[in-house]
Amino acid sequence: MLSLMEIGVYGTGRFGSFWAEQLARHGPERNTIVLTYNRSERPVPAGCDSVPLERLGACECVMLCVAISAVDEALEALAPHVRPGTVVMDTCSVKIRPVDAMLARVPPSSPVIGTHPMFGPDSAAHGIEGLPFVYAPVRAPASVAARWRAFFSSLGLRVMEMTPDAHDREAAMTQGVTHFLGRVLADMELDASDMATVGYRKLLEVVEQTCNDPYQLFVDLQRHNPYTSQMRVRLQESLTRMMKLLES
Amino acid sequence: MLSLMEIGVYGTGRFGSFWAEQLARHGPERNTIVLTYNRSERPVPAGCDSVPLERLGACECVMLCVAISAVDEALEALAPHVRPGTVVMDTCSVKIRPVDAMLARVPPSSPVIGTHPMFGPDSAAHGIEGLPFVYAPVRAPASVAARWRAFFSSLGLRVMEMTPDAHDREAAMTQGVTHFLGRVLADMELDASDMATVGYRKLLEVVEQTCNDPYQLFVDLQRHNPYTSQMRVRLQESLTRMMKLLES
Repeated sequence: MLSLMEIGVYGTGRFGSFWAEQLARHGPERNTIVLTYNRSERPVPAGCDSVPLERLGACECVMLCVAISAVDEALEALAPHVRPGTVVMDTCSVKIRPVDAMLARVPPSSPVIGTHPMFGPDSAAHGIEGLPFVYAPVRAPASVAARWRAFFSSLGLRVMEMTPDAHDREAAMTQGVTHFLGRVLADMELDASDMATVGYRKLLEVVEQTCNDPYQLFVDLQRHNPYTSQMRVRLQESLTRMMKLLES
Repeated sequence: MLSLMEIGVYGTGRFGSFWAEQLARHGPERNTIVLTYNRSERPVPAGCDSVPLERLGACECVMLCVAISAVDEALEALAPHVRPGTVVMDTCSVKIRPVDAMLARVPPSSPVIGTHPMFGPDSAAHGIEGLPFVYAPVRAPASVAARWRAFFSSLGLRVMEMTPDAHDREAAMTQGVTHFLGRVLADMELDASDMATVGYRKLLEVVEQTCNDPYQLFVDLQRHNPYTSQMRVRLQESLTRMMKLLES
């Protein structure tokens, strides 16, 4: 049994509030309390308590739920309040960049773990059970890494331990290509159609789901993952190859 | 009640054999007999009888189930055997071109109806109920058009009456873009991934489904629908726009 523990969630935007509520929902059976902080005023996620930054830094763990491009700013605000031993995690969709920022800005007395919950409010609408959760304990004693790994597993998540580099490489060719194509297809203004085939309906679902995420996520995924530019080049190459093939 | 009627299916490839079996399955309750013909020897679809071309042309209706690029050749073989009154239909994924070919080659004593069952063996794996079926009675007395429309509706299909031009225009931006992207993504060699998001899994399903269809269907869809080249230009424009946006 875990003793009573407090998890801090920094940032209660679209993903942060969803995530805080997920943690809080599983709270009672795990003696977990979820405290949240947001720079500006926002509704407090269900089952959570809003606290000032000083209080957040005293939690056993603080999870950053901010845009990739806002990680530096968030760390700058949070770092002075992080108590020794408090584990700092991010939840960004790229890993190398935010993990490097945490390693640079979080005091050495605090463990650092990168995470990427590979889902959001839409794709986890029917629950998080079995969904992939990337876990990169880049600066953490083995016992701390094991403890939090067990915690996320206990939520029903499929915890995948990997390095930030391995994550970014694979995410570029999976989540990265999906979000890029979703925005490209939205730009084409594809419409629902009475004669839609099953395949076309799936394509529209990809558009809907990716475009329902914040635009900033799309831009950050493409700009801050060092492997997405290669993915886009490969996509363009394949597109050109198929175009030429049809012309020949 | 319909009286006993014979439907001929010309071509028992991947789609033709699937389609002949669908028709035969609904046969008994509708007093329908399905006769099939294939240029080369092939297994006879379940519930059907294989007949020579002369016999096929004597059916009440003959449905061409051949590749778009093989329609001319099929009509050349079939036309001399078509009895006055026999309704000739195609089932191609583009409509202007095969309908024009039928109008030119089918004797004037026979009605001509273009159709496009917007599904195949994969997407109709769980049945054809409610799936879209495009219906273009381009040269048919009103009573004939109504009769066959009622027949296809009675199979549970969602019959959509439209002109070949309207079909090709809309199909280019739905089925056409889906099959094109499916092949582009296959060319990129996207892989299954343990960290696949829900959206990425949908994208892989699009690849799997489109690439499971014959390569000839993909090529024909792109080459013989006069609107698909515009679709590909729009796709390239949107891709370029998103690329530039990320670089700025």
